[in-house]
Amino acid sequence: MNMENPLEPVGRAAVAASRELAALSPEEKADALRLMAAGVRGAAGRIIRENSLDMEEAEKNGRNAAFLDRLLLTPERVEHMACGMEQVAALPDPVGECIREWTRPNGLHIRQVRVPLGVIGFIYESRGTVTCDAASLCLKSGNAVILRGGRESLRTNRVLAAVLREALAESAVPADALQLLDSGSREEVKQLCELDSCLNVIIPRGGKGLIRTVMDYSRVPVLKHLDGVCHVYVDAAADLKMALNILDDAKTQRPGVCNAAETLLVDAAVAERFLPMAAERMRQRGVECRVCGRSMPFFGPEAVPASEEDWSTEYEDLILSVKVADGVRDAVEHINRYGSHHSDSIVTEDGKARDYFMGRVDSACVYHNCSTRFSDGEEFGFGAEIGIGTDKFHARGPMALRELTSYKYVIEGSGQVKDPSRMPDAVRSRPEEIS
Amino acid sequence: MNMENPLEPVGRAAVAASRELAALSPEEKADALRLMAAGVRGAAGRIIRENSLDMEEAEKNGRNAAFLDRLLLTPERVEHMACGMEQVAALPDPVGECIREWTRPNGLHIRQVRVPLGVIGFIYESRGTVTCDAASLCLKSGNAVILRGGRESLRTNRVLAAVLREALAESAVPADALQLLDSGSREEVKQLCELDSCLNVIIPRGGKGLIRTVMDYSRVPVLKHLDGVCHVYVDAAADLKMALNILDDAKTQRPGVCNAAETLLVDAAVAERFLPMAAERMRQRGVECRVCGRSMPFFGPEAVPASEEDWSTEYEDLILSVKVADGVRDAVEHINRYGSHHSDSIVTEDGKARDYFMGRVDSACVYHNCSTRFSDGEEFGFGAEIGIGTDKFHARGPMALRELTSYKYVIEGSGQVKDPSRMPDAVRSRPEEIS
Repeated sequence: MNMENPLEPVGRAAVAASRELAALSPEEKADALRLMAAGVRGAAGRIIRENSLDMEEAEKNGRNAAFLDRLLLTPERVEHMACGMEQVAALPDPVGECIREWTRPNGLHIRQVRVPLGVIGFIYESRGTVTCDAASLCLKSGNAVILRGGRESLRTNRVLAAVLREALAESAVPADALQLLDSGSREEVKQLCELDSCLNVIIPRGGKGLIRTVMDYSRVPVLKHLDGVCHVYVDAAADLKMALNILDDAKTQRPGVCNAAETLLVDAAVAERFLPMAAERMRQRGVECRVCGRSMPFFGPEAVPASEEDWSTEYEDLILSVKVADGVRDAVEHINRYGSHHSDSIVTEDGKARDYFMGRVDSACVYHNCSTRFSDGEEFGFGAEIGIGTDKFHARGPMALRELTSYKYVIEGSGQVKDPSRMPDAVRSRPEEIS
Repeated sequence: MNMENPLEPVGRAAVAASRELAALSPEEKADALRLMAAGVRGAAGRIIRENSLDMEEAEKNGRNAAFLDRLLLTPERVEHMACGMEQVAALPDPVGECIREWTRPNGLHIRQVRVPLGVIGFIYESRGTVTCDAASLCLKSGNAVILRGGRESLRTNRVLAAVLREALAESAVPADALQLLDSGSREEVKQLCELDSCLNVIIPRGGKGLIRTVMDYSRVPVLKHLDGVCHVYVDAAADLKMALNILDDAKTQRPGVCNAAETLLVDAAVAERFLPMAAERMRQRGVECRVCGRSMPFFGPEAVPASEEDWSTEYEDLILSVKVADGVRDAVEHINRYGSHHSDSIVTEDGKARDYFMGRVDSACVYHNCSTRFSDGEEFGFGAEIGIGTDKFHARGPMALRELTSYKYVIEGSGQVKDPSRMPDAVRSRPEEIS
């Protein structure tokens, strides 16, 4: 017999809450989300005070400016969090949606209906805003959630969870639908991953180290993306000015995010015209280029030769790898081999090249004549996102409310049995005769 | 550095084949399936000869009659296999289906399109017919498959795989889209489970031991059901004659299958009227009843008291556990606690009780006024099935072609970038201006 997981009581409370939550009406859930938003708004002072204690400690621990900026809550950011929850409240409720329905020849009526997943474990790094995003998406989709935030934002998350649970206590949603693990111990992550008796899915959000840890320990499915090695391919038939802007936006508008481009592929037929333009623009933006042998002549002496490793590296920085491809086939092969199945774009005016690329590139999001930066729940119109999926199982691409649901089949009969001929009173009990 | 998995070459061949296969037209895949059917039909003599060698060995090894019957191929069964493949060939092709599409305010057009999963590992026990079912469902849905059948049907599976691959060689589908592991070693199952570099999903089909082994070793998602503890609940407002037939069919029509009922729940309000009828019918069918204290008076001296363990046991046999419930709430609680989230049925004429049950029972298939035995791909109209899912991730209930697919987002733009204001030639490159 195994030792009991110390999180079992938390898990059981979440399961019980998830059962109640799954049966609530869309209005009851939206009301709860609005109460949560009001609660956060009303407790702004308290939240900011606790956050400032987290900030002090992080500064003492020598965290860098980018980290501190992500951790910091200001009155504007708290207001933004509250608005975000109100926006999620206003979205259509996915639960109960009839995905399809049909009637069988024997009269059985089958409906495929969307239902919540159940209990979600959400493990993330140091951002208070993520606490509110995750809470609102999970509850709106009818799921209980167990949150485990970064240790550096422990005080912030504690006060946020307390405020959100106080709001739930006034609503139809049971407060245990939202629980925070706040011991701050590393063991907690492992214990949550092993809580397969109560969890239906784990969603990690953060750096690769965190995601790998969750993948290694988890005994339930993991919704995640690990890498974002995204490509822009400039085809022979590209509008080169458009291509230049798309490359620029995809690489430099926010280089640290997963849907930023890491590699530029250029058809050999336009390399001579496009690469000097690209080299110049990247120079203006302060981007370091790591280039293949054939690209080298178009880049200045500052260009670095690309290594084999560069093609599969997510720089998350102002670095771009550049490769000349022999047409769309070669480009697609490169992307499927070195990419991370996240987001890839072709720039071309040629319908055949476009169709080949869109059909053959094995990624969650394939783009034609636009930036890869649009892989995002808000840009897709999903209102928010819980993450971006790069696996093929369950959900891919931006994941929001719908992706936090499963379905069940609801079958209505009028006495149908598989084999009526075996029934002693077969004549009376055949469905045709009943109705 | 890890030792290379000996199945890597098989896996890489499958990945390469899956890329080709994913791009084929519905006609090309349907043609291949028809060639496979013709191949099996033409090789019936050869198939039956090899099968008879498997049969001889199984008899020598003292396998029981049920096992031998499942292993046996007759001319009729071979013809049935060929017809099955032709039926799958005629089904609508799920790949390329547009699940939904919409246009964003910035002009981006987003389509969510169905794509194959990639490479499927299918691990099953000793039935040649399953080889053909799995091959046709996987290929039709655009997936390469690596088959690993039971060791007792090794010769049968070898000849079937050879015949199917010969047929593929004449088609547009690469022969390596279908590979059989035929070393017969136990290690092979573990190696296939660990082939996460090449597999997208593993589907085990067979006894609980096999499924547990796959779950323990697999590094990729597993599509499966483990238990089928299905319930029939007879509500206070049930048509009792209908309820009796549904119970009888669900329990006795084929007790060894996963969608057969294991537990009868009866509302206390009708226990006195229904249980004597149920006891009598079960006696006629030779069913052993294991009953709760409140049911005991209605069963003869041959009734066995149910233990706590009985409520969560899948008997796969002519055994039924029986419990009196205090209304639909109590019944639902029992099902969610002891059931396996597979298939559960309520018999009632009361719409409120029905809605409560259908909404609250947390199972893949919930039935009203019919037998649980309809949880089956053919009965649902899916043409065939690869299995029945009882998890909430990816697919639930009968799983067939659609459930063997994922999707991708295909986004069409006209030069859109996330932040046009940053573009040096912003005025010219804004999407509005291009068109």
